[in-house]
Amino acid sequence: MVIALAFLIVVLAVSKADVQQTWRSMGEVLGASADTDWRDIEPQNLLYMELDSGMIIIELAPQFAPRHVENLRKLVNAGHFKDASVKRSQDNYVAQWSGSGPLGEAKPGLLPEFYRDAKSLDFTPLDSRDAYANEVGFVTGFPVGRDSATGRAWLSHCYRMLGAGRDTAADSGNAAELYVVTGHAPRHLDRNVTLLGRVIEGIEYLTTLPRGSGPLGFYEHENDYVKIRSLRFGTDYDSGWQALRTNTDTFQALVAARRHRNEEWFIDPAGAIELCNVPLPVRRVE
Amino acid sequence: MVIALAFLIVVLAVSKADVQQTWRSMGEVLGASADTDWRDIEPQNLLYMELDSGMIIIELAPQFAPRHVENLRKLVNAGHFKDASVKRSQDNYVAQWSGSGPLGEAKPGLLPEFYRDAKSLDFTPLDSRDAYANEVGFVTGFPVGRDSATGRAWLSHCYRMLGAGRDTAADSGNAAELYVVTGHAPRHLDRNVTLLGRVIEGIEYLTTLPRGSGPLGFYEHENDYVKIRSLRFGTDYDSGWQALRTNTDTFQALVAARRHRNEEWFIDPAGAIELCNVPLPVRRVE
Repeated sequence: MVIALAFLIVVLAVSKADVQQTWRSMGEVLGASADTDWRDIEPQNLLYMELDSGMIIIELAPQFAPRHVENLRKLVNAGHFKDASVKRSQDNYVAQWSGSGPLGEAKPGLLPEFYRDAKSLDFTPLDSRDAYANEVGFVTGFPVGRDSATGRAWLSHCYRMLGAGRDTAADSGNAAELYVVTGHAPRHLDRNVTLLGRVIEGIEYLTTLPRGSGPLGFYEHENDYVKIRSLRFGTDYDSGWQALRTNTDTFQALVAARRHRNEEWFIDPAGAIELCNVPLPVRRVE
Repeated sequence: MVIALAFLIVVLAVSKADVQQTWRSMGEVLGASADTDWRDIEPQNLLYMELDSGMIIIELAPQFAPRHVENLRKLVNAGHFKDASVKRSQDNYVAQWSGSGPLGEAKPGLLPEFYRDAKSLDFTPLDSRDAYANEVGFVTGFPVGRDSATGRAWLSHCYRMLGAGRDTAADSGNAAELYVVTGHAPRHLDRNVTLLGRVIEGIEYLTTLPRGSGPLGFYEHENDYVKIRSLRFGTDYDSGWQALRTNTDTFQALVAARRHRNEEWFIDPAGAIELCNVPLPVRRVE
């Protein structure tokens, strides 16, 4: 009995040491990352949106929404967003903007891109019970739901995600009306709206906007609208961005770090993590 | 074959009609609620926090954190929060405040109330796969996790929840340092910090505060601090508040409404809902 207890203590001691070796902090994981763990974000997939308060930078996701990304390009090039402004800020939900310029070569409505064929996607699964999807994970740095029964995959409405607003008709969105999720993930919108990107920098300039007093958080008076100074692609800027590859051991170590929290402050680490709580690191490169 | 198809169509038609009868909208559910579906929030469990921008109203949860709620009462009565201010706003995480007045009869540290015995709690389960807890649900209008193996129940870190900050020691919190969740639910904090309430009104005045530029979102300069004009209990105010009882058929209908979304706009209703996406309605009574 005494021997058994002593043995147990040794086992516990080893497993504790093991824990501390295996589960590093997020800072340690990123500090030890190799350059090959990072991918360059193509400048044409970066969208810079400037408010008076600061710059918001978005990575677009043409692999999930090619039609919407292409239409957005045409809208920007046509000067559609020249006098654009944020017209809606609904608490714990979304901030939404739109312009009033010409459509140019852009289409007024698009076939929806609520989901796509999951085949040929490099999907990194996340081991997590999810309320909304049978399977969740990541594709090139974006949070994704997947269903093997239907063979579909879709971007998930986590904080930071960029969507294309639509009316009741499924094909009424065209990326001229855009929103960003600024609250707790409204995952019930998944597969009901086309998501086409993710804010990688400056989301706080959207999240901290005053809430609109009208229905759905729309600003009731035009002089409450928040002016968008400019909306441009990354090809207009010198500095570039990299995102941590999500199909790497480094990303797995990062997920483990956030799942197990070996920091001394944690008394009862969750040992679990939810899709939208997984950080998706980016870094600026000059 | 033709008959089978015709039969199938009839079945589908019936089930669609059925859906629309059973799953009302949230507005319809609340509109049809009876007065007995609502409970009065006791004025001594309401905390009014006034900023220059507006009033934030919190319901305290003494059934989960009796020691922290009692200590908070003593701190307020001792004038501890007289010159209090919000000193931290971290994006997608928390806003945090503290005072510098006397402790009075309040204790400098408290035994933690990270969880409580689940027995004797009127727990209304939510049928939902949850990443963090084996079982989730509601107790008197608060989001709760439960584990039948340990017999424990705890308040969950959803948007709006009020917590008592602590240092590394489990008993270093005393409700003098308070935070509210202003981002996507950081559920990994569950059972690691004492939660003691929930913002029922005005949370946008916290969520829209400028983010602090220091580590963890702390404001780096004292003149960035956001002054708290006053912190008072509901006993000082005339108007009262009611919360929808979560152990009622009306609440079940509301959860069903949000799970199934019969509004025409939804093309592919989720049929699922996550703990922190369930609305917990309140109403003002004069």
